[in-house]
Amino acid sequence: MVKLNTNENPYPPSPRILELCRNMDWGQLRLYPDPAAKVLTDALAAYHGLLPEQVFAGVGSDDVLAMAFLTFFHSSAPILFPDITYSFYPVWADLFQIPYERPRLAEDFSIVPSDYFGVNGGIIFPNPNAPTGCAMGLEQIREIMDHNRDVVVIVDEAYVDFGAVSALPLLKEYDNLLIVRTYSKSRSMAGMRIGYALGNPRLIGYLNDVKYSFNSYTLNLPSIYLGAEVLKDETYFQETLRKIVETREWVQRELRALGFIFRDSSTNFIFARHRSCPALKLFHALRKKHIYVRHFDQDRIREYLRITVGTREEMETLIDFLKQFLDAD
Amino acid sequence: MVKLNTNENPYPPSPRILELCRNMDWGQLRLYPDPAAKVLTDALAAYHGLLPEQVFAGVGSDDVLAMAFLTFFHSSAPILFPDITYSFYPVWADLFQIPYERPRLAEDFSIVPSDYFGVNGGIIFPNPNAPTGCAMGLEQIREIMDHNRDVVVIVDEAYVDFGAVSALPLLKEYDNLLIVRTYSKSRSMAGMRIGYALGNPRLIGYLNDVKYSFNSYTLNLPSIYLGAEVLKDETYFQETLRKIVETREWVQRELRALGFIFRDSSTNFIFARHRSCPALKLFHALRKKHIYVRHFDQDRIREYLRITVGTREEMETLIDFLKQFLDAD
Repeated sequence: MVKLNTNENPYPPSPRILELCRNMDWGQLRLYPDPAAKVLTDALAAYHGLLPEQVFAGVGSDDVLAMAFLTFFHSSAPILFPDITYSFYPVWADLFQIPYERPRLAEDFSIVPSDYFGVNGGIIFPNPNAPTGCAMGLEQIREIMDHNRDVVVIVDEAYVDFGAVSALPLLKEYDNLLIVRTYSKSRSMAGMRIGYALGNPRLIGYLNDVKYSFNSYTLNLPSIYLGAEVLKDETYFQETLRKIVETREWVQRELRALGFIFRDSSTNFIFARHRSCPALKLFHALRKKHIYVRHFDQDRIREYLRITVGTREEMETLIDFLKQFLDAD
Repeated sequence: MVKLNTNENPYPPSPRILELCRNMDWGQLRLYPDPAAKVLTDALAAYHGLLPEQVFAGVGSDDVLAMAFLTFFHSSAPILFPDITYSFYPVWADLFQIPYERPRLAEDFSIVPSDYFGVNGGIIFPNPNAPTGCAMGLEQIREIMDHNRDVVVIVDEAYVDFGAVSALPLLKEYDNLLIVRTYSKSRSMAGMRIGYALGNPRLIGYLNDVKYSFNSYTLNLPSIYLGAEVLKDETYFQETLRKIVETREWVQRELRALGFIFRDSSTNFIFARHRSCPALKLFHALRKKHIYVRHFDQDRIREYLRITVGTREEMETLIDFLKQFLDAD
């Protein structure tokens, strides 16, 4: 089986994790974890050069994002997010009865900053966007921030480490900016469920207030300790990123040679259509060979497949199959 | 420091946990965990003699309870829970705008079943109740169930393993009964954040629907595997319970001899007042000696302290101090 459908990291987390797991005092499990997850939020603050009170941690970025929707999106004006983006945004908006509008991405799947200048109740977009894989530059994000001083703007940076520019430098300038990150992609720890938000201490304080009104203890002991530990191994982290980016560049060349059309990816996945072969035909043919990719049955992107960048070996299996299949087709 | 304020288990979890942690394939962390946590829910179903579809798992019983409030309590009629009970019930009710009424416990802190016979939008109570430590018998729970066939009745069995009778046998008779359990007390795994609900497959299905609308992946990989593993060591579990109950019986005798007044506990804590010394005076004197117990600044129970049953050594430290202090007082 080649699993290229959920954008997981093909490499295990830093070996420091295994070391820590073997040596951790698991007897401590009898005690409640620190509700503030201070070991983790302190480590994240130091890693990003921020204050500990600028960091909020949750059970994966889904938990952090859902809480941010609940905490910050209250206006009768609609919140704004792209028509093609992370599928959970409309789910949470519906759940919390938050009105929303979805500005249309440009034909090349770019986010158009001026679409976000009107009256709104808040803004959220991923950078790079998913499932398109396209990144915005810092100047465009700044444009959006400059036109939105009175609402919370959330930049979901789930995939930022794979090649986009982070909005982190803007935190000093904009107290209404919230950046959300996850350990599930670049950090190779999807199984651990760790996500976090970075922002002004006031925003982080509000998130904590809402969190404590549901459940004081969300992150468990292993999440807190392993999440902090993995930040210490920058060399391994950068090496993992380098390998994924290298594989991605190779796969992009191969896919283009095979007639696939797509914009360069800034993520660990490629969002591509084929110039002649229908997406669903490819999807089913791949599945038959136990190669799993993602298809979205959604307007504008029905002809696309989202293909996670796995190991070089996995991607060779994919490319070899596509060569044969498209040749025979 | 002697920490007797959060009802944690003084004993570490089964040594099988340490074994599993040392041998687990932590490289798996790169993958998302099973959103259904099937390894855990299957193990719990087998342990309790139920079907897997009768089990819902969450991030501690707080997560499970909050989701149950959101899922099942929608009526304009008030939900009912005791005036003295777990402090998070009114918090969730307020958060989700659920109307509620709080029938008064009897003077001896018993729950009066007939208080729960009127029109209501649902019922929740812990058995044994917290912080009172008093348990209800199965016949009284049955009475409440018989008068409430059209609303969901939640029995929060966080402390049931320490000496109360579980409502589990009633699941066969009542499809509107939901039982909630936690790994944080008897299972010595507060640090792991595992809670679960047992009930009719239809109720469990509704809980899953709500869960998936927030966050598909709530339980992380270690929670799923360690949570299942610990169920295999019944001998260690029973031995831990036996030690806690034995210590509790000893402490109860000692406290009574010192002039404390309380009903026999069915939990791992004792909820007691002193016949002459004010609770806050004791609370502060204990804190000065780094012995931490819990005080509730709440009507009817201001003169009480909630004292967790720790190890025999910890409880001897407590009793020795109280002897001296009350003697000098």
